[in-house]
Amino acid sequence: MQTLSDIGEDSLIHRLVNGLPQGPSVIVGPGDDCAVVSGVEAGNQLLLKADAVVEGVHFLREASPALIGRKALARAVSDIAAMGGVPRHALVTLVLPPDLEVAFVEGLYQGMRKLAEEFAISIVGGETTRGSQIVISVALTGELKPGHCVLRSTACESDAIMVTGRLGGSIYGHHFTFQPRLHLAQWLVQNHKPNSMMDLSDGLAKDLPRLAAASGLEFIIDPGTLPCTPGCTATQAWGDGEDYELLFTLAEDKAEALLSHWSLAFPEVQLTKIGRMVPKGQGTLPDFESTGWDPFV
Amino acid sequence: MQTLSDIGEDSLIHRLVNGLPQGPSVIVGPGDDCAVVSGVEAGNQLLLKADAVVEGVHFLREASPALIGRKALARAVSDIAAMGGVPRHALVTLVLPPDLEVAFVEGLYQGMRKLAEEFAISIVGGETTRGSQIVISVALTGELKPGHCVLRSTACESDAIMVTGRLGGSIYGHHFTFQPRLHLAQWLVQNHKPNSMMDLSDGLAKDLPRLAAASGLEFIIDPGTLPCTPGCTATQAWGDGEDYELLFTLAEDKAEALLSHWSLAFPEVQLTKIGRMVPKGQGTLPDFESTGWDPFV
Repeated sequence: MQTLSDIGEDSLIHRLVNGLPQGPSVIVGPGDDCAVVSGVEAGNQLLLKADAVVEGVHFLREASPALIGRKALARAVSDIAAMGGVPRHALVTLVLPPDLEVAFVEGLYQGMRKLAEEFAISIVGGETTRGSQIVISVALTGELKPGHCVLRSTACESDAIMVTGRLGGSIYGHHFTFQPRLHLAQWLVQNHKPNSMMDLSDGLAKDLPRLAAASGLEFIIDPGTLPCTPGCTATQAWGDGEDYELLFTLAEDKAEALLSHWSLAFPEVQLTKIGRMVPKGQGTLPDFESTGWDPFV
Repeated sequence: MQTLSDIGEDSLIHRLVNGLPQGPSVIVGPGDDCAVVSGVEAGNQLLLKADAVVEGVHFLREASPALIGRKALARAVSDIAAMGGVPRHALVTLVLPPDLEVAFVEGLYQGMRKLAEEFAISIVGGETTRGSQIVISVALTGELKPGHCVLRSTACESDAIMVTGRLGGSIYGHHFTFQPRLHLAQWLVQNHKPNSMMDLSDGLAKDLPRLAAASGLEFIIDPGTLPCTPGCTATQAWGDGEDYELLFTLAEDKAEALLSHWSLAFPEVQLTKIGRMVPKGQGTLPDFESTGWDPFV
């Protein structure tokens, strides 16, 4: 099988950029020092996100390269969605061992390209270089309409805490196949705008305290309400990472209206109220052993 | 000494984002799912660049962390400059071994922060994760005025080929301390707009053929004119990478005018005409052994 050291950088790039999705906003795509794209629509704001997946941490080399590439891009889409925006342009930086098969890298791009097409994202450039461990670093821009922005730092006291989907056990496959909640998030900001929102990447155990701390609040959850992936325990729903579901808060009375509209709009996606935001000093941590995912600890 | 595994991700991020430069265009800086920034000025275009430096490839861990961080950001600034744009917002993705000292990572950010301040760049976010090898991946946006864009694919037949500065021997220190040629590039696009331009990152031996191929042309250089770094041979000036000088072409008669203005405007930076663009089939490769840098071969 052909490896990267057989063909060199220029030939690799030539193969990868062939047929990449390029929307009408792309003025200069891959191949120059930078990509040139049109700015966001007048009055809109620009979202910027960077993320990386690392071999042995976020995936194993034995996995499908298309799923690995898909995951690398989908994670960033999930973040753009959780701000209330829509994704626009991606840059892909690959760190690759020279003895890696060319077909593997083409597979990564195949997975990214397919997801990019699904979400109308243009892949406009990137960089390839050498390393001992595969790293896929994605930078993604997004566009945000005025009034659509939802931060994690603006939860209000007494807000209901909501999560989409089911949580836990992502390691069994969901971490590769999850659907970034762009459509749901857009519907939310247009119809039932949350006070605060973020995506669940490191587990509810890590991310809910982050949202609460950013908002200067604490929380009380009802462990019995946690929407568990079938076959998973509440501990897994609390502590496992990589759910890529939406975590958001909104006023209690609005939550009731939302829940009744939701089941009509998205009958296939569960929406669950799991607790409420409370002032500092009044929160309690649920009695689970897991504390979520930390890359360094 | 304190390591990343001692303090964990949230505490690391808290230390890194403290005091990062945030210009008036930053609406939401580090800390949320994405950064929110204002779009480019009406009529301007957006530049997007991603780049990465890898331990053992672009730097050794024994080097000054501030210089490593500076280099990671400066490389991307050099690319924005070579398109005719000015840099705006940076995202920094770090892949870090958990046993790395916290002080090392703070040093990386110190170097990036200083360069960011010098070039009025806002560092608006990023990501940290775990890996066996340090990787610093930088995504940088830039802003381009209408008419300022210079591509590598638009050189014209008979254009003079010009390079700024002196080439070769970057490994002895210049690869860390180089000054991205933003000021020179801005002056060029405003006063003597080149037909084509790129920055020299992989060596003239690799980058000039890239510019020629992108423009559908070949080139003839005069090896005797290569501006060598003191102590370096013409072979090094041709083949060594990481000069981060500007390579550009413009019509022969305009080159003469430029050369006389240049020495008044930038007496401290050499500008050299090293050859000319010729039609396909009429070029000759100079008789050097080096072929420039390829990460995989």
